[in-house]
Order: sequence, then C-alpha cells, then structure tokens
Amino acid sequence: MKPSAKPVVAIDIGGTKYIVAVISADHQILSRVYRHTLSREGPEKVIARLMSTIDEVIDKSGIKPSQLGGIAVAYAGLVDIDKGIVTEAPNLPHWNNVPLRDMLVDRFKMPAFVINDASAAALGEHRLGAGKELNNLIFITVSTGIGGGIIINGELYNGTDGCAGEIGHTVVQLDGPECSCGRRGCWESLASGTAIARMAKEGLRSGEKSILLDMTYGVIDDVRAETVAAGARKGDALCKRVINQAACYLGIGLGNLVNIFNPQMIIIGGGVSAMGEMILRPARRSMKEHAFKLPASTVRVVRVGLGTDSGLLGAAIYAQLMAGGKR
Amino acid sequence: MKPSAKPVVAIDIGGTKYIVAVISADHQILSRVYRHTLSREGPEKVIARLMSTIDEVIDKSGIKPSQLGGIAVAYAGLVDIDKGIVTEAPNLPHWNNVPLRDMLVDRFKMPAFVINDASAAALGEHRLGAGKELNNLIFITVSTGIGGGIIINGELYNGTDGCAGEIGHTVVQLDGPECSCGRRGCWESLASGTAIARMAKEGLRSGEKSILLDMTYGVIDDVRAETVAAGARKGDALCKRVINQAACYLGIGLGNLVNIFNPQMIIIGGGVSAMGEMILRPARRSMKEHAFKLPASTVRVVRVGLGTDSGLLGAAIYAQLMAGGKR
Repeated sequence: MKPSAKPVVAIDIGGTKYIVAVISADHQILSRVYRHTLSREGPEKVIARLMSTIDEVIDKSGIKPSQLGGIAVAYAGLVDIDKGIVTEAPNLPHWNNVPLRDMLVDRFKMPAFVINDASAAALGEHRLGAGKELNNLIFITVSTGIGGGIIINGELYNGTDGCAGEIGHTVVQLDGPECSCGRRGCWESLASGTAIARMAKEGLRSGEKSILLDMTYGVIDDVRAETVAAGARKGDALCKRVINQAACYLGIGLGNLVNIFNPQMIIIGGGVSAMGEMILRPARRSMKEHAFKLPASTVRVVRVGLGTDSGLLGAAIYAQLMAGGKR
Repeated sequence: MKPSAKPVVAIDIGGTKYIVAVISADHQILSRVYRHTLSREGPEKVIARLMSTIDEVIDKSGIKPSQLGGIAVAYAGLVDIDKGIVTEAPNLPHWNNVPLRDMLVDRFKMPAFVINDASAAALGEHRLGAGKELNNLIFITVSTGIGGGIIINGELYNGTDGCAGEIGHTVVQLDGPECSCGRRGCWESLASGTAIARMAKEGLRSGEKSILLDMTYGVIDDVRAETVAAGARKGDALCKRVINQAACYLGIGLGNLVNIFNPQMIIIGGGVSAMGEMILRPARRSMKEHAFKLPASTVRVVRVGLGTDSGLLGAAIYAQLMAGGKR
C-alpha cells in the first residue's frame, strides 16, 4: 500500500448539507465550505452547485489543481463503486443511476471516486478516529437515516458492488413503520432521528402533554429529534419516553450487528449520537439483552472520534489509497 | 499459506446427530461414522461417546494416529475460537463454557480446533463447493435452527472471538415468536424447520383441515418440517400456505443479508434447503422485495454444493490450515 502523497478534494454529500474540503496528504483540512444540499431540486442542480463549490474550495486552499491527487465523494446513498454511479438514495430524491464520478472527471480532469458516506466514515474512524489499530469494527451513523460501514481484517469492506453496509435497511419489525426506502420496519424507521421525531409527534397528536408544544410554539410539525433531546434534558416525560424507546430499538439493531459480526467495536456517529449517554446508555443495555453473551461482552459501543469529519476524512483517505493504486 | 499435508479427524456436532470422519490431505473421506447426539444427556456423556467414536473412526481409516495432523470440530453453537471453548448452544442444552478443545488434546495428544459449524460449512463451500473462487459469500444452514458463516475477501471471517455469523439470531420481528436462544422474533424463530413445524401445528390446532392429520395418524406433535414439505408436494393447502409463509420470512432475512453484505452469493444448506425450489423460488422473490436493487440483482441464492458434508469438509480444511500455521 502506497497512498498518494498529494492533497485531495474530499466531499461529503448528505440529504441536508454537503461539505467540500481540500485535505493534505497528512489529513489536515486546508480549506472547507458547507452548503445546503437542497436535495429536492434534484441531482442536476445539486451537481452544478457542487462543481462551483469545488472550484471555490480549491481556490481557497492555495493548492494548484495540478497538485491535487484526485476527488473523492462520500455520498449518502447506494453507490456502484466500480462505475462511480449513485444507483439510489433513500434520503435524496431522484438520484437514480447518476454517473457522478465521470461528471467530476470530465469537469476537473483528475481521478475521481464515489463511495458510500458511512463506508467512508468507517475508513476515517479506522485510520484516524475511535477505531485506530482495530481489525474488526462497524461504523453506524444515526441521523435522518441510519447508514453503516464495515471494517474487516483492517480493511474497508465494500461488498461486491460497493453497497455493503446498508444496515439501516434491515427489517427489524415486520410490517413496522414505513421507511424512507419504501419498505416497512427497517431499523432506520425505528431508531433514526426521523423516527424519534415521528414518535414524539404521534404522542403529541394523541393528546400527551409535553414541553414540546411550548418549544415549537404549538407547531407539531416543527418537532425534530434535537427538539425531543432538548425536551428530555429538561425532564419532559414524553421526550424521555421517546428517547428511551428509540434507545431500545437502537440496541436491538446493535444486538443484531453484534451477533452477525462479533466486532471489537461499534462506533456511532450522526446527530442522534450527539445526544450522548442519554441515548447510548439505554441502547447498550438493550444491545446486551439482544446479543449473545460472549460477543456482547467483547464489543465496545462508542461515539465517533472525528465528530462530523469522519466521512470527509475517510473520503480523503479513500482517494489517496485509490490514487495510490490500492483498492 | 501452507496447509498441513496430513489427514485429519473432522467432526460435525449438531443437536440431533454427530459425524466423525478421517479426511485425507486432498479431502477424501477415508472413514466415517454417524451417531445420535442424544444432546439431552448433556455434554459429559456426549463427549465420552464422541471420544470412543473418534477411536473407532481412526481405526477404520487405516491411518495411524501418529500420521494425523489434528482434530477439528464443527459445533452447532457459539465458540470461543482462540480458547477452543463452546460458550453456549441454543439447540444443545447445558453446553456452557465446555473446554472441548483441551479435552480432545488431552485425550488424543494432537492439535485440536473447535469452530462454529456454519462457519466451517462456509469454508467447505468456499474451497470445494458452490462458492469456489468467489471472494464474498454468506453460507446459511436452515434446519432446526439457522446458522451462518461469512467469507470476506476469500477468507473465513470468524469475528473477534469466533462467534461471527449468528445470523439466525437477529431480530426480524420485534416481539415475534419465542426463539431457541430465549429471545423473541429472531429470524430462526420465523424461517427455520422448527418454525415451519410450529406454524403447521398452529394451523391444525385452530381446526384447519389438512393431510397432515392422516400423515401423523392424528398426532399433531409428530408434525415436522419434512412432513409439511411432503404434504405441500401432495398439494395440501395448509402445508402450501405454511411453506410460502416460511419462504417469505426466509426471503426477508436474505434481503437483510444482501443489504448488509452485498455478497456475490448466498449458499443455503440444511434440511429446509433440501425442499429445493418449492421454498427457494418464493424466498428469492421475497428477498428481492426486501433488498436494494443493485445488490439484489448481483447476488445468486443457491443450494449447498457439498450436500450434508460442507461442515465436515470445512472442519478438515480448517484443521489443515491451522495445523499448517495459518489462522
């Protein structure tokens, strides 16, 4: 393995915002810009904006385009990694078979790579974050949805096409709530930030009293996972019940992962993980109830080490590995 | 990797029967004996019988004990692979922390290894069976329970302790039927042979008419998965409904595996797979409904290539790899 010694452009595209950065060979962020994805506008407009953001960020970095080793995109959807195509994206409408890699190569005349965002984050956490020097770990991001990345024998596992790790879309409750993917009862539909907001709204609509009504000036639709977390910290009964319920669901999925992978560590990122021990402690308890003793006692369930930068840094590492000739 | 060039003793221990064989360096079965496990008698008596069966099989093989490279056990339970201990076994009562490897080493004075049976079968199918030359595959055995084995990047993935692949014990239906592991709604509780028998018995007890009553002389408790399969082949409505329901559940779990692993192949062994296309065709259909398009179109779901010998041959390969110094 001889990683590229050049800086790269790393991009992390989610349903709400995207980040573009130039990252040095030793993983320092030289320049960085956040933008709203405005994903409802569809891929064409998003990509057009992305292209000019890339120009802007390269310019800001002081690095000449000719000195860059490549561009890597961590994308919140299913990626055909060999072809560099986004095949579908439950949380970004209309991204069906978008040849993102070739569009970047055409525009910037340098190597480009597209990888699932949670897989990129797993790589970032493994090389620079909470999972350094471990052999087997699972990364999950819990926010709007639930994504996953898998490190096996010290290497990122992408699966046959590049779609491995869609852990959020495993059925945990047959005929459960509708999921962003169109199916029912996926883990994501029970334990994501979206699920937390939905459960709180259901409680409010069924007439439960809660501080949430004050916090949103009575507009139930404005309740978000963060609002529920804030309410729980203030001691609100509805909010606490919802967080505990989500933690229980989170733990069931963690238990499934423990039984499947017997990993050394599960690293949790995303907005919901930012709630910290309030949700992680009951989730660990639920995990232990749903997994076999030995693997449950082995695994450490921890918060992300690189904050919100795991995906971005992981994308940079991926670009450097790939540009250096290592798949 | 330099596998041992010596023949080995390979053992496959399940809840119903165990098999002991001497297997040559080029994977020919030189001698073989089947015995009832009689698992209700507990580990001590089972192991005592196993020891004398090993003597018998070595004797039959014509190989001198001094020429053997070691002994490998494929065991239907959770194994701490480094310590050679069976930690727990949902389908074999009282096997809690049994130091099987050391007992074999003490008795036979040669290297011994203990590995999960479905992991062994995955290795067998990968090296000699349906999955030859593939990089990423999942093996599942569907019979009394559901076990799993994982091949990643051409190597068996055992997890941190040796417990990886307990795919049968992932929650698919929250608060679903009771499972052998003591929890509820595991995949095994919905799609195993035991689940098929249970669903048929429930139908009979609720008064559904069925050929099953004739086939079991009215003793509902005698209904087994094979009886249901035979009834379905004769066109019995209850049996056909139960097989289709189990196929649907089977497909949901397969869909989960496809979304997690994006594998090239899923190989299905065990008694239920012997029902063939009657259950596999509707299971594949259900799998496609529950998985993302790209990985669902990539994966091939096939029957086991080595029949009931996958675990035994996999154990032999494992012993040869380990005795040859390769973990």
